[in-house]
Amino acid sequence: MDELLRYFQRELPGINDFLDREADQLNGLVRDVAKHILGSGGKRIRPLFTLLFARALGYAKDDYLAIACALELLHSATLLHDDYLDDAELRRGRAASHLVFGRTETILAGDALLALANEMGARYGNPRLSWLLAKGIMETATGEIEEIEFSRAPSLNRETYMRIIVGKTARLIECACRCGAALAGATPEQEDAAGEFGLNVGIAFQLVDDALDYASPTSETGKPEGGDLKEGKVTLPLILLMEEGDEAGAEVLLEALRDGSLSEAQSRDVLEQVREGGYSEKTREEAARYIEKAKACLDGYEPGGELTVLKQAADFVLTRTK
Amino acid sequence: MDELLRYFQRELPGINDFLDREADQLNGLVRDVAKHILGSGGKRIRPLFTLLFARALGYAKDDYLAIACALELLHSATLLHDDYLDDAELRRGRAASHLVFGRTETILAGDALLALANEMGARYGNPRLSWLLAKGIMETATGEIEEIEFSRAPSLNRETYMRIIVGKTARLIECACRCGAALAGATPEQEDAAGEFGLNVGIAFQLVDDALDYASPTSETGKPEGGDLKEGKVTLPLILLMEEGDEAGAEVLLEALRDGSLSEAQSRDVLEQVREGGYSEKTREEAARYIEKAKACLDGYEPGGELTVLKQAADFVLTRTK
Repeated sequence: MDELLRYFQRELPGINDFLDREADQLNGLVRDVAKHILGSGGKRIRPLFTLLFARALGYAKDDYLAIACALELLHSATLLHDDYLDDAELRRGRAASHLVFGRTETILAGDALLALANEMGARYGNPRLSWLLAKGIMETATGEIEEIEFSRAPSLNRETYMRIIVGKTARLIECACRCGAALAGATPEQEDAAGEFGLNVGIAFQLVDDALDYASPTSETGKPEGGDLKEGKVTLPLILLMEEGDEAGAEVLLEALRDGSLSEAQSRDVLEQVREGGYSEKTREEAARYIEKAKACLDGYEPGGELTVLKQAADFVLTRTK
Repeated sequence: MDELLRYFQRELPGINDFLDREADQLNGLVRDVAKHILGSGGKRIRPLFTLLFARALGYAKDDYLAIACALELLHSATLLHDDYLDDAELRRGRAASHLVFGRTETILAGDALLALANEMGARYGNPRLSWLLAKGIMETATGEIEEIEFSRAPSLNRETYMRIIVGKTARLIECACRCGAALAGATPEQEDAAGEFGLNVGIAFQLVDDALDYASPTSETGKPEGGDLKEGKVTLPLILLMEEGDEAGAEVLLEALRDGSLSEAQSRDVLEQVREGGYSEKTREEAARYIEKAKACLDGYEPGGELTVLKQAADFVLTRTK
């Protein structure tokens, strides 16, 4: 992973500076909220993928930061609204924005970041880029809504779960990759390959997130342990457990998730069963299959520095522990 | 106003059908919220201005609905978030969305309408249109934020008040007019004239709104009478009253607005003074000056049906009683 690490180290300061400067331009009522969410140590994989695909396809100019960072702003905007609507307490180990700054500031900061992301993408005057970004914003908003809908009527249906994680996570990563390709003036085939890569990496990313939720202590993830279960979210580790258990037990659990009546004891019991059955590891194995698919999308790409880093980034998505 | 009325009658069904069809595509969780706000009888002046400028500048194709309606969706999105954050009870005489559908549905519907508006504008693959829309979205978000900031620290400064109404209302109407011009492939000068027209009409529109708030019964406006005062909002009728009164009285009132301690008796007293001093009428006179400025922007336009309707629309903004 040496090349990836070097790339990260080289590009991250520029990305963070750019995000900081853009946030500084925002109105005082929402500026601190924006800086709080942007400064909370996101992995910046979206900007990095945009940059990597632009470079891999021969883009040499250095005006990529606006579109690369637009995807990060868009992602941050959804986190603000999501955390508020979920009544979340923590985000990446820090107090959630609405608890620090209040609901008005948080909702409006989400609106402002969404608007700013969109405006940054429009700066290029590139119709393909504007279209991809507009579509990405629409899909992300829809994904957010579908996730909340699903959390109100959870099911153990794997297809539904996959649709949710595509909408809430994978489409935006697909969008980041496509935007990099579009910036480089890629052919439709090249852009589609970038998009397929991003979609598969994005699915794997969320699967790993869902696996980590059951497997890692709060000190590492910055989120409450078993938080998804406590919030009534059905994710793959739980679906895998329920698929092997009896139907009656699954129905009882679903009922408790639906009406928020899951007891501490039930919750501990489920966490224990997931651990014993290795369902977190099995979720990672599922993620590994998507990472393989993602890497296969790069077959037509020229060998070179960016290709190596892209493959390593895909592996990193899989092996990360937080 | 015959030509305007005929234009309205001819174009409104198409605009409303289009908005309806787009809202129908939204996810079930937010669809009814979108239909509630869109169906609550907005005046559709934004779509109409887009259409009028496109036609006035020779645009003959009939694919104008997506961009025209994008502006209406954007406006509706801000109403949803605003009403929620203001704890508003009424919107156009109907219960505010968050009271009917809940906070999650309302916030997410705002996000979805914003995203949809943006996507509809991107459909044309016209970089100027995408840029104008992105800028309009950014300015509208900023205007929303500045208004809330102002309401927390109200002042009687007329310049600040003007900046607020430009941001919250006039920029979006300017955007609607510019988008119509851009759709028609206008020259920069033609687009600027359309924008100037829209900006001035937009200022007048908000001035009239603020005048109506003091002058009209709820049965006509669908909003609580003297609602701005009760919500602690400083608008021109109040500024005019205070400019003629003593400084100490103004300071007491500002203090009460700031900490929300305005009594029923104080409020009745202010309403009475505004009525007696004719400050609502004086606010309309101020609006009339902006409408004159707006009409002067049309001097370079070819005489014809659309020009007549544009002028009548400007007059309508001034003379409306709700």
